[in-house]
Parts: sequence; structure tokens; C-alpha cells
Amino acid sequence: MFPFSDTTLAVFGPGLLGGSLLLEAKAHGVKEVRVWARSEKSLEKVRERRLADSASTDVRETAQGADLLILAVPVGAMAALAGEIVRAALPANAVVTDVGSVKAAVLAGAGEVCRRAGVAFVGSHPMAGAETPGLDAAKSGLFRNAACLLTPDASTDHAALEKVDAFWQALGCRTSRLGASHHDEVVARISHLPHLSAVAATLASFRPDASMAQFAAGGLRDTTRVASGLPSMWREILMENRTAILPALKDLHRVTGELLEILTEADDDHLLVYLEEARRLRATRYA
Amino acid sequence: MFPFSDTTLAVFGPGLLGGSLLLEAKAHGVKEVRVWARSEKSLEKVRERRLADSASTDVRETAQGADLLILAVPVGAMAALAGEIVRAALPANAVVTDVGSVKAAVLAGAGEVCRRAGVAFVGSHPMAGAETPGLDAAKSGLFRNAACLLTPDASTDHAALEKVDAFWQALGCRTSRLGASHHDEVVARISHLPHLSAVAATLASFRPDASMAQFAAGGLRDTTRVASGLPSMWREILMENRTAILPALKDLHRVTGELLEILTEADDDHLLVYLEEARRLRATRYA
Repeated sequence: MFPFSDTTLAVFGPGLLGGSLLLEAKAHGVKEVRVWARSEKSLEKVRERRLADSASTDVRETAQGADLLILAVPVGAMAALAGEIVRAALPANAVVTDVGSVKAAVLAGAGEVCRRAGVAFVGSHPMAGAETPGLDAAKSGLFRNAACLLTPDASTDHAALEKVDAFWQALGCRTSRLGASHHDEVVARISHLPHLSAVAATLASFRPDASMAQFAAGGLRDTTRVASGLPSMWREILMENRTAILPALKDLHRVTGELLEILTEADDDHLLVYLEEARRLRATRYA
Repeated sequence: MFPFSDTTLAVFGPGLLGGSLLLEAKAHGVKEVRVWARSEKSLEKVRERRLADSASTDVRETAQGADLLILAVPVGAMAALAGEIVRAALPANAVVTDVGSVKAAVLAGAGEVCRRAGVAFVGSHPMAGAETPGLDAAKSGLFRNAACLLTPDASTDHAALEKVDAFWQALGCRTSRLGASHHDEVVARISHLPHLSAVAATLASFRPDASMAQFAAGGLRDTTRVASGLPSMWREILMENRTAILPALKDLHRVTGELLEILTEADDDHLLVYLEEARRLRATRYA
């Protein structure tokens, strides 16, 4: 069990994930909860809702003396943020982690900045989110039963890894460990490709006449749901992981081409093979 | 309001939709509820659950004297079934309708059989369903708030159309009327294309290593959900509507190709345009 009552937690970025972390920290009796945001406007909301013991736009002030520091900002902003954090006076056992949805880039950026400064860093990716971004969408329980992928490498401090693992488990996550590149290949298939597929399905379904959707049942709604995600956020995620996404997207394009050929040729036996394979594969995860 | 207390309803095919119709009929106080099934085995379940006043494998016996006759069998079996139905003695104001998910083929098949026999036929498509087929999945309330598309043509009897419209409205459907070919183009975009997209996403996501899906969040689950639909049923639907599906599937294949090109070239401005268009289009239907 992670000793929450001894922990000073610093959350950088009070968005959906960061805000949910604040709510959890409060609920779990963390000793001190701090939050940093780029703008005073974001902090006002945090203060109104009393989500933290202190709230500041000063990175060093927020980091000073914190035991567990969580980067919950866009992945592209993490390395610079880590650079400011490591200039603060941190306890010897302080650990920096993140919630970024790609990991090779984070380890090479924020992870490397911490390593050079002698500060322990552990890459984390809690698979929790929603189409609705921002603090208003934050909720306690967001991490419950979510998978959380930790991406240690040869340089990762063992105690820091155990600490971060225990933290996510305490929030209800099912934690697993895998290499950063493997992580990025996995999420390309299970998160980023479904997103691109939903975007493609939305464009192909809605473009001719969006008003037709009034007649739709649950299939259209669910198949396209994640395409309502924040475009600016998804642009960044998709660009950051494009190396791992490209083979997956090639597969998707190839399969849609095969289905097109099958339908064009009215090859219903072949169509059945595809439908059966999809149903069988999906049954490995979903009843 | 449809006069249920005067109606003898005959449902042909006690599957998910037919079974749900039986439950609704009971709840709405229909005078007499009859059901026909191809096999005695299907009828046993109906009898056990007392879902109908009579249950038979004899089409003519089931149809005899019925006011409202609903074909809830696979579309490919409807014309032959209609051929047997019109041989029964039906009241002058009897109406035959169906629940098929394609309509041009149904009007040319079962609709034409009825027209030639002087029996009123109205094409219906309640947009209600589930991945789980069969009587066990049937439930009352299945049709509530569902869109129901009626497809009258020049030969459709006005009173029959009003009767069928009132029936679906009584079950809670939002009814609309459109031409059969237009209907087929619409459902190709809002139902059949999402299905093919979910199948393609499942194959591309799960094939390399299906066990990766254990780490997935809601995006993979929802984007691929309908790919768990019954393969034999979907083969038939997709083949029956292939003329209308082909241009939609071509669009899907083209868009996945465009996304692949955008990602390959790391053209993030162009990517944002696609993400924003998808989000905006989807917002026309879903908040």
C-alpha cells in the first residue's frame, strides 16, 4: 500500500486526468496536494473547488519538496516542464511520472531530462479518458479498473518503479509493465487506430448528408464515438506516435480495400470468413 | 391511436425483433397474438414463455383472419413467406409489413407478391437491434425512441400506410417515410458502413496480438462493438444492400488512404482539418 499520508503530491496540469488525480488524492488522504497550471484562469477553477492545498503557475514552487510529481500536460510540453522541475530542491526519493499516451518520446524527453539531473523518472500511461477534455470532466473513479501501463527501462530506479506502481494500483488501476516502444505499438493498435477508424467512418457516413444520422441506431453512435475527441489533442497524439501507427493504419486501409473487393465481386463466402474472424477476435476481449 | 383491442396480430419469426413485437403486443392489449416459426423448437420457447395466443409452423393457419401481419424473418425468406400468406383468407383491410433492414429488395419481393394478390403491403424498418440475436435477447421497450423508416411507393394503400405508421408509433418509434432506394442508401451510410468499419477496425487492431486488447479503454470496445454481430445475418444484409453500400465503402477506403498519406507525410495541419471535420459532422447528431 502506498503511504498516502506521508506523500506530498504535485500535479502539473489540472485537465481531465490531472483534475481526476486531484480528486483521488483528496479522497485517499494524501498529506499535501499541489497543483501547477500554465494559466491563472485554470487555477481559479481549482481553487473554487478546493481541489488542492496550493495552486501556482510557478513550477519550481510547486515541485519544491514534493515526493511524487505527475506530468499531466500534453506530451510535447513535458520535457521543458521536467527541465524546470529538476531545478527545484526535491527529496532524495522523489519520483517524477507522467500520464502521456505515448512513451518512447516521453522517455527520450522528460525521462532523459530527469535522468541527467539524477531524479527518478517512471513512464506511466493510465488508459482512462473521455471525449470531453478539461477539469470540468474530471471525476473520482476515472482510473478504477483501467489498465495502467508502466514503461521502465534499464535505467529505471527499482524503488521508484514500485512506488509509481503502488500509486496507480491504489487508484484502482490494473498495472502492467512493458518497454516504451512495445507500449507505443500496442496503443497504436488498441487506441490510436480505433480513433482513426472512427474518424474515417464519421467522414464516410456523415459527409453525403449529415441529417441522415437522425435515423441511426447505436451502431453509428458507438463506431464513431471517439471521433468527437478534441482535435488539437488527437493531432498531437497521432503525430507523436506516427511511426507505430503507420503499419496499423496500412493494415486498416488494406482491410477496407479487401472488403471493397469482396463486396464488388459479391463473394459472400469470403465475406462470411471476414465477419467470422472479426467476431472471433473481438470475443478474446469482449463477451 | 392504433386500435389494438380489435387487432389480430400475426408475427412471422420469433427472433430478436419478432419476439420483442410479441412482448409489446401483450403489453398493449392486442386482441389476439399469433406467431409462426419455421421450427417446432422455436415455438417451444414461445409457448413456455406464453408470448402468444397461438403458435404454429403452418403459415396459412397463422395468417388466416389476421389484420396485421409482420414478416420478421431474414429478408431472403420474405417473398416465399408472403406467397404462402396471400393464399390464406385475409380480412379486406389486412396489412402485411416487415422489419427488414433493406427495402428495395423487399418491395420487389414480398411487396410485389402481395400487390399481385391484392393484399396491402407496407415496408417498415425499425432501427432497433442488438449484437445478440434470437428470442432470448427480445425485450419490451426495444422499439422505444428508435427511428422507424416506412417506405411507401405509388402503389401503397393510404389506409394501410397510416395503420402501420400508427402501430410503430404506439410502440414508441419515431416514424419517417422515404422511398425504398433512398432508404437503402441511407442505411448503407448509417448502419451498414459502420458495421464494415467496425469489422475492418477489429481485424486491423486485433490480428497482430489479440491479447493486447486487455489494455484497451472504451475506444476500442465501442469502435468495434457491432463487429460482434451475427456473421450469417450480416452477410445477408451486406449482400442484399451491396449496390448501395459500394459507394459508401469506397468512400471509407478512400478516407483511410488519405489519412495514411497525411500521417506518412506528417502533415499535421491537414490531419487537424480531418479531425475537426469529423468532430463537427458528428456533432450534428451527437452532443
